[in-house]
Amino acid sequence: MNQEQVLSLLKEVKEGSISPEDAVLKLKITPFEDLGYAKIDHHRGVRQGIPEVIFGSGKTAEQIIGIADSMKKNGNTNILITRLSKEKASMISDVLDLQYDPMSQIGIIGRKGEITAKTKIVVATGGTSDMPIAEEAALTAEVLGNHVERLYDVGVAGLHRLLANIDVLMEAKVVIAVAGMEGALASVIGGLVDCPVIAVPTSIGYGSNLGGLSALLSMLNSCASGVSVVNIDNGFGAGYLASMINHIKE
Amino acid sequence: MNQEQVLSLLKEVKEGSISPEDAVLKLKITPFEDLGYAKIDHHRGVRQGIPEVIFGSGKTAEQIIGIADSMKKNGNTNILITRLSKEKASMISDVLDLQYDPMSQIGIIGRKGEITAKTKIVVATGGTSDMPIAEEAALTAEVLGNHVERLYDVGVAGLHRLLANIDVLMEAKVVIAVAGMEGALASVIGGLVDCPVIAVPTSIGYGSNLGGLSALLSMLNSCASGVSVVNIDNGFGAGYLASMINHIKE
Amino acid sequence: MNQEQVLSLLKEVKEGSISPEDAVLKLKITPFEDLGYAKIDHHRGVRQGIPEVIFGSGKTAEQIIGIADSMKKNGNTNILITRLSKEKASMISDVLDLQYDPMSQIGIIGRKGEITAKTKIVVATGGTSDMPIAEEAALTAEVLGNHVERLYDVGVAGLHRLLANIDVLMEAKVVIAVAGMEGALASVIGGLVDCPVIAVPTSIGYGSNLGGLSALLSMLNSCASGVSVVNIDNGFGAGYLASMINHIKE
Amino acid sequence: MNQEQVLSLLKEVKEGSISPEDAVLKLKITPFEDLGYAKIDHHRGVRQGIPEVIFGSGKTAEQIIGIADSMKKNGNTNILITRLSKEKASMISDVLDLQYDPMSQIGIIGRKGEITAKTKIVVATGGTSDMPIAEEAALTAEVLGNHVERLYDVGVAGLHRLLANIDVLMEAKVVIAVAGMEGALASVIGGLVDCPVIAVPTSIGYGSNLGGLSALLSMLNSCASGVSVVNIDNGFGAGYLASMINHIKE
Amino acid sequence: MNQEQVLSLLKEVKEGSISPEDAVLKLKITPFEDLGYAKIDHHRGVRQGIPEVIFGSGKTAEQIIGIADSMKKNGNTNILITRLSKEKASMISDVLDLQYDPMSQIGIIGRKGEITAKTKIVVATGGTSDMPIAEEAALTAEVLGNHVERLYDVGVAGLHRLLANIDVLMEAKVVIAVAGMEGALASVIGGLVDCPVIAVPTSIGYGSNLGGLSALLSMLNSCASGVSVVNIDNGFGAGYLASMINHIKE
Amino acid sequence: MNQEQVLSLLKEVKEGSISPEDAVLKLKITPFEDLGYAKIDHHRGVRQGIPEVIFGSGKTAEQIIGIADSMKKNGNTNILITRLSKEKASMISDVLDLQYDPMSQIGIIGRKGEITAKTKIVVATGGTSDMPIAEEAALTAEVLGNHVERLYDVGVAGLHRLLANIDVLMEAKVVIAVAGMEGALASVIGGLVDCPVIAVPTSIGYGSNLGGLSALLSMLNSCASGVSVVNIDNGFGAGYLASMINHIKE
Amino acid sequence: MNQEQVLSLLKEVKEGSISPEDAVLKLKITPFEDLGYAKIDHHRGVRQGIPEVIFGSGKTAEQIIGIADSMKKNGNTNILITRLSKEKASMISDVLDLQYDPMSQIGIIGRKGEITAKTKIVVATGGTSDMPIAEEAALTAEVLGNHVERLYDVGVAGLHRLLANIDVLMEAKVVIAVAGMEGALASVIGGLVDCPVIAVPTSIGYGSNLGGLSALLSMLNSCASGVSVVNIDNGFGAGYLASMINHIKE
Amino acid sequence: MNQEQVLSLLKEVKEGSISPEDAVLKLKITPFEDLGYAKIDHHRGVRQGIPEVIFGSGKTAEQIIGIADSMKKNGNTNILITRLSKEKASMISDVLDLQYDPMSQIGIIGRKGEITAKTKIVVATGGTSDMPIAEEAALTAEVLGNHVERLYDVGVAGLHRLLANIDVLMEAKVVIAVAGMEGALASVIGGLVDCPVIAVPTSIGYGSNLGGLSALLSMLNSCASGVSVVNIDNGFGAGYLASMINHIKE
Repeated sequence: MNQEQVLSLLKEVKEGSISPEDAVLKLKITPFEDLGYAKIDHHRGVRQGIPEVIFGSGKTAEQIIGIADSMKKNGNTNILITRLSKEKASMISDVLDLQYDPMSQIGIIGRKGEITAKTKIVVATGGTSDMPIAEEAALTAEVLGNHVERLYDVGVAGLHRLLANIDVLMEAKVVIAVAGMEGALASVIGGLVDCPVIAVPTSIGYGSNLGGLSALLSMLNSCASGVSVVNIDNGFGAGYLASMINHIKE
Repeated sequence: MNQEQVLSLLKEVKEGSISPEDAVLKLKITPFEDLGYAKIDHHRGVRQGIPEVIFGSGKTAEQIIGIADSMKKNGNTNILITRLSKEKASMISDVLDLQYDPMSQIGIIGRKGEITAKTKIVVATGGTSDMPIAEEAALTAEVLGNHVERLYDVGVAGLHRLLANIDVLMEAKVVIAVAGMEGALASVIGGLVDCPVIAVPTSIGYGSNLGGLSALLSMLNSCASGVSVVNIDNGFGAGYLASMINHIKE
Repeated sequence: MNQEQVLSLLKEVKEGSISPEDAVLKLKITPFEDLGYAKIDHHRGVRQGIPEVIFGSGKTAEQIIGIADSMKKNGNTNILITRLSKEKASMISDVLDLQYDPMSQIGIIGRKGEITAKTKIVVATGGTSDMPIAEEAALTAEVLGNHVERLYDVGVAGLHRLLANIDVLMEAKVVIAVAGMEGALASVIGGLVDCPVIAVPTSIGYGSNLGGLSALLSMLNSCASGVSVVNIDNGFGAGYLASMINHIKE
Repeated sequence: MNQEQVLSLLKEVKEGSISPEDAVLKLKITPFEDLGYAKIDHHRGVRQGIPEVIFGSGKTAEQIIGIADSMKKNGNTNILITRLSKEKASMISDVLDLQYDPMSQIGIIGRKGEITAKTKIVVATGGTSDMPIAEEAALTAEVLGNHVERLYDVGVAGLHRLLANIDVLMEAKVVIAVAGMEGALASVIGGLVDCPVIAVPTSIGYGSNLGGLSALLSMLNSCASGVSVVNIDNGFGAGYLASMINHIKE
Repeated sequence: MNQEQVLSLLKEVKEGSISPEDAVLKLKITPFEDLGYAKIDHHRGVRQGIPEVIFGSGKTAEQIIGIADSMKKNGNTNILITRLSKEKASMISDVLDLQYDPMSQIGIIGRKGEITAKTKIVVATGGTSDMPIAEEAALTAEVLGNHVERLYDVGVAGLHRLLANIDVLMEAKVVIAVAGMEGALASVIGGLVDCPVIAVPTSIGYGSNLGGLSALLSMLNSCASGVSVVNIDNGFGAGYLASMINHIKE
Repeated sequence: MNQEQVLSLLKEVKEGSISPEDAVLKLKITPFEDLGYAKIDHHRGVRQGIPEVIFGSGKTAEQIIGIADSMKKNGNTNILITRLSKEKASMISDVLDLQYDPMSQIGIIGRKGEITAKTKIVVATGGTSDMPIAEEAALTAEVLGNHVERLYDVGVAGLHRLLANIDVLMEAKVVIAVAGMEGALASVIGGLVDCPVIAVPTSIGYGSNLGGLSALLSMLNSCASGVSVVNIDNGFGAGYLASMINHIKE
Repeated sequence: MNQEQVLSLLKEVKEGSISPEDAVLKLKITPFEDLGYAKIDHHRGVRQGIPEVIFGSGKTAEQIIGIADSMKKNGNTNILITRLSKEKASMISDVLDLQYDPMSQIGIIGRKGEITAKTKIVVATGGTSDMPIAEEAALTAEVLGNHVERLYDVGVAGLHRLLANIDVLMEAKVVIAVAGMEGALASVIGGLVDCPVIAVPTSIGYGSNLGGLSALLSMLNSCASGVSVVNIDNGFGAGYLASMINHIKE
Repeated sequence: MNQEQVLSLLKEVKEGSISPEDAVLKLKITPFEDLGYAKIDHHRGVRQGIPEVIFGSGKTAEQIIGIADSMKKNGNTNILITRLSKEKASMISDVLDLQYDPMSQIGIIGRKGEITAKTKIVVATGGTSDMPIAEEAALTAEVLGNHVERLYDVGVAGLHRLLANIDVLMEAKVVIAVAGMEGALASVIGGLVDCPVIAVPTSIGYGSNLGGLSALLSMLNSCASGVSVVNIDNGFGAGYLASMINHIKE
């Protein structure tokens, strides 16, 4: 069910031609397939080419293949697998047509989506070491039909590298700021742009970085407005949310 | 400088008629007034009625009055003061024309803004006790020109209260989910809607809620896509970001 | 000493035919065998087929064999070994008749117990990755004589998967809710059912899940009544407690 | 809708005379009253005398009175208010017929319930200082129709005080173990009895008790089987769950 | 014993005319006065006007007066009291000639020191609310004979306020960066200047600022070189260390 | 039952003239009085003048009076009350003959004990502010019959103050090292003496002292042998343990 | 310098025949050998057979051999190496006459010491898995000349195992209580005996045991008097301190 | 641009011959090379022989080689690589002329710098195990042109080892104090010297050392003046800052 259908349904609710309770069911009690170890939704508009997502970590290669098979049978031509280790990717490749990027640990079954949004997402990183998470965000957004511009290694300790690229930032509809250590990049970018900034703390660093908590806390306490935060190393979540915002129509 | 001016400037950059470095200066080295204890920007389009914001906590009533005076002299007709205690509000009222809401601790100087976005923001809370933070978010968004719908006391332990209002959620361009204790509201709403969800953890609860950390961690680890998080009790930040998203044009 | 014997002893205490102090001794100073590295109880009614439990982690294969041997010599036909690594299981299999389940890391010596309770335990998980802990709980409960129904991958971000199975939940005498990440499953189930819910946080997740603490805190702060919590990844503890509750007679 | 009605509904589901989806709605989309600041359920069988519960903390006296009024109008003769400060209790007493216990901060509107369970709940504390939380648990259970036996100041540093009362423990259907500091009471009781033990950590102590976290962690790591844990100082939750278990019928 | 005397002593050590052990005694086993509750050093060159320091917090007004009296009797004309509450300051003023600054909670007995260093210390803050700690640092440095330049409210979310003052920063021998919330100021300044930056995290903020830990962790993880950190809100420590560095001679 | 009686009983156990189980009862199931809110032991040799101890915090004045009355009726001439607030002390003084020390918050009913150990306890503090906890330790030890020497304000940042008193340290049978902030005193003393050092971390400090955790962790990680640690601010515990060690006979 | 020499020196100090400062030097500026990477004391009475201790972790096998060689050259016949991995032990064995115990990771060079104390140390553990740490404590104490009695697997969830051995506990001069998980063993033993109890938290457990912090906090908050705590898994420290206490002469 | 040039530029600013904004650009918008994965500054005076620094952790060998190549092409004869694993060092050695020190994990391309400061840096450690971090600091400082004196294994539990070297400390312009476990070394040295002390907590230790947090907190709470702290195990940062201070000219 796509969003226009949702709106027309809601109009019926308002006009009283359908009760809210029935609408709920129409909206949400969509069919899913029960594999025992997983319950797979087949509700997100197959015809529209929106990819399905499988969180690869904590699932066996067999389980991932089973889930992907079920999705393909239901018409999905486009499946994104995140946090996919090299080993599992290799096992899946034997069975399915998988494109795999080892840096971001992302696997794609089917063809990459077309660009479906007019505006741009910028993905910026504090340092070179933040690239795996940044690529997880960027590839996710690309698969979801976005134009993505990368701005890597522009950490705040060398401000000129960021300032020299301010035009890139200014053209973004939404910015993903990826940084570990002190995570200050999100605040500085948040002060420079007027669009939403999605902050992704990374676990890059050592000692009192506490596995990324230092960057996370820094970002949550940002004094810049328009900044919100996702989990440590959650490039996928940032890419997905950025795509959502980038596709907003008035 | 408003956003159209920014765009035309950036075009000049691309055409090479102005260097990026010079554009940076034009964009960012905008005038500000130095009061010694504060440096006040006068750059956000005064003519457009966008309100200035003063973070009231940690400033004396005298400092707040000084800052507001400076803003008014520069043409701001619309000033939002957050985290303003009853005592300071009373002192400021003696001098300036202040509207004060004790529940959200928000003060407004000047008239509330007109509605400038066509779509709606929904503010939902898990319980009655989360209302002060929810109102901080809702009033902020209203001052910034948004239509806001409130959906209070719809916590996940009584799911029917949320499900019976699913049509309200479905009409939102962006949802603010405010919850303390286990903070599960954000995940459940995130699974129901297809728009961005801004999660605001609150310090409501006791014992192992750790002053709101339990809700914060819960929201950061949400398994629903499209959810991002702001600081504990940061109703203002959520309202500001929601307004940004609600005003996005394609 | 079984529970009927306990009750008759307590009656004697009330009637004054035995002092409380003497009763204590009769009750608790039961025989145990001292292996030096372990002191093994032989007090839980051998004749009743209740299995003995060995916590496998931190013990060598030799120690486990020694303990199991001692139990068998005392008539136990039914021994449950938890947290048993594949390596140790293989070493024990050479000597004893062990059934081993690698997913849950549970080993069973002897035959599985008969069903001794009329009612049912439901084990639900938020995701596929929570299955090892869920199986530890389910197998424990089954060995202890319970009928167990599994409801896997019903996390709150896809509420319809849970709601479509509400009849399964409604038939439970006690529910075990197993979830990592934001751990919201326990609250949502707690709001749907009227029976005790045992929440098992898992270490599934990454970053700010803090090895399961996010789910643990979330569950402890549940706003649903009837929810209590065991240690992170403690499937055994949940299965044991659920069996206790499932066997309660009025 | 009471539990028998639920069961007959579920039978219809099994027989196919009603779809699961429709049953969900019948079960859960029960009427509630929307006060704006609160959404009050009127679904728990009014005719059965089960009390409604209001969590008093974070609500104003006016809000509590409003909620209680709405409940009374729907036929509730029995309302329990927890975490009710002396000040609010006094304000409510002016309007409603409130019984108030300052130690446990519990208020009761209407008459205490009759005993509806045949078996007993034992509430034990480590020290005298744990009494406010223990009384919250005990009064909650009593209001819910249970016979409660109190066993206070039986901490593990003076084991004979506990052992001398072992007959009281042995007669319990469920034990609530309330303790601060090192929280060892739950483990020791858990090793002595064969019934469920609900552990309530308290914030009693100082320094490295970390506001109750030391007792909480201790209880979560209990090596005794049958122990589960609720939030720090959550006497109400323990009393409610204990009542649930104490009312279980085979 | 002043530093020249130390150097000449060390030369004797090198020449062998005095053993290292004897030098230790000469250097460090200096006279102190024992008041029972305090042991007061009288070793820092009285004749040179270097002030003595009393940490006011946790001492009674009587104890502070006793210590100051003892210092004055030994010739100190210049005593600095930190963390001195208004109440204690008022009590001390009755007895001693105290200058008191309520914002920084600093009291000075005797005249402020002359400027004894040729170069400058810059004290910068992220916001207006950081001023009490910044003033503690600035006044400490001034009492110790330094020229101090204040640069307040130059937080990174409004970068132009900082960049417009870059010449002030460039002239500093050492910079004290005072900031709460995300504490990014230290990193940004550290990237701009080539001198030591002393970072002072403040407890300004709320929620996940964790009483200043967010800023502290951010500063410790700074990716800028030349940054070191003192305790949260430790303005005195930063001022003292800055003075030390500002007085270094080649 | 005093210790000689214990030894003779244990000899009977070894000779087989009494079973271990019966000995347990004789030893531990000693009489206690049940006041409902407290269970008071009357087993520690009344005739020997060893004082009873009441932990005052969390008990009402009425409860303390009730407990003390019961103790006095059983012949205790010597009662120590710790963590007794000024207010409660004043209420108790109206009824009982109480000596009260406001700094350490210790109250004594009855006469102070005689010195019963030949050797000495030294109580050292890092600073003046640690005195309340140090006095709690010192007074506890004195009431328990020890000669106590105080060595206050000998923190490691002024090593000569400690070294000049090394002879006092050397004469101790056991040293209590009381320090907040970085807690280094315990390690330095532990390296200087050859007797047990009981480290008492205090909550003195601010910011990253985390309420005493910094000193606690520092002391637990001491690289000096012979150091053990009690809870933050637990002067009583240190005084009690020191007395135990100081009374050891070969 | 042995302790009698220390006492005679201190007498001289008191009589004024030597200044405190000179005594300090005599006492502490004892000879040590500088290997560059280590500074080895040769001050603890070689003639008395007290073993030297090398903390093996973090040192290379080469460094350990170098240190041991230097000690042996100075007459030490008895060297204890703790935290010595199997690999390093094997490399050292090639060069030096090393006895190695893999469970406790302790290595001994030279012969084990004779029993030099008349009384006994008891080492108790909560479970079988705590044995490596318990053996580190026990072997350390044995090398230091103590008679050690082991009481393993007597955790509080099976109280009868501890109570049946109460005579062993009663004969101890000092008890070492080794436990992970909830760490309640220390409190229960502390309530049973009248001698010092040294609590050793272990990292045994999982999930919310937080690597031993749960047991550590539990032990620090013990409500039993006479209990003090050492670092997590610090069997050596407990053994060393226990030996110190066990050797105390009146 | 070197510092003299900066000063002359700032004079122009003061005289008004250049605007501050233009000066900013001249100062900071220095050329850098964009490799995509890294943005390399070529602004730090090549002619002066100041080495460039590459943080090796989290970069591939290929990336490091690419960055180093770019630096060399711009004239850098002196490149410092920190946190360089043995494996990567070996791969880089195949291509570039690398000197590698496995203990400190530091690699140097080009020749070590000449001594450019007249005064000395002292690097002290608590134990032998702290050497890798200490060597990272020492080698960094040496590459930056400093004379470094090492003072290893002078922990506070054996104070005489430190006191015997007090002359070395006294000659330092700045001291780097490297210590794990309780981290007391910084406070003791801070009390002995009159120069800045840079404290480097290390992760050496176990259990409650919490990966270095115990030492970090200890150092942050130092009661000695003149002490500041860098991240856990951040030897490079300490060496860099020490060099900065050691090169200060009046």
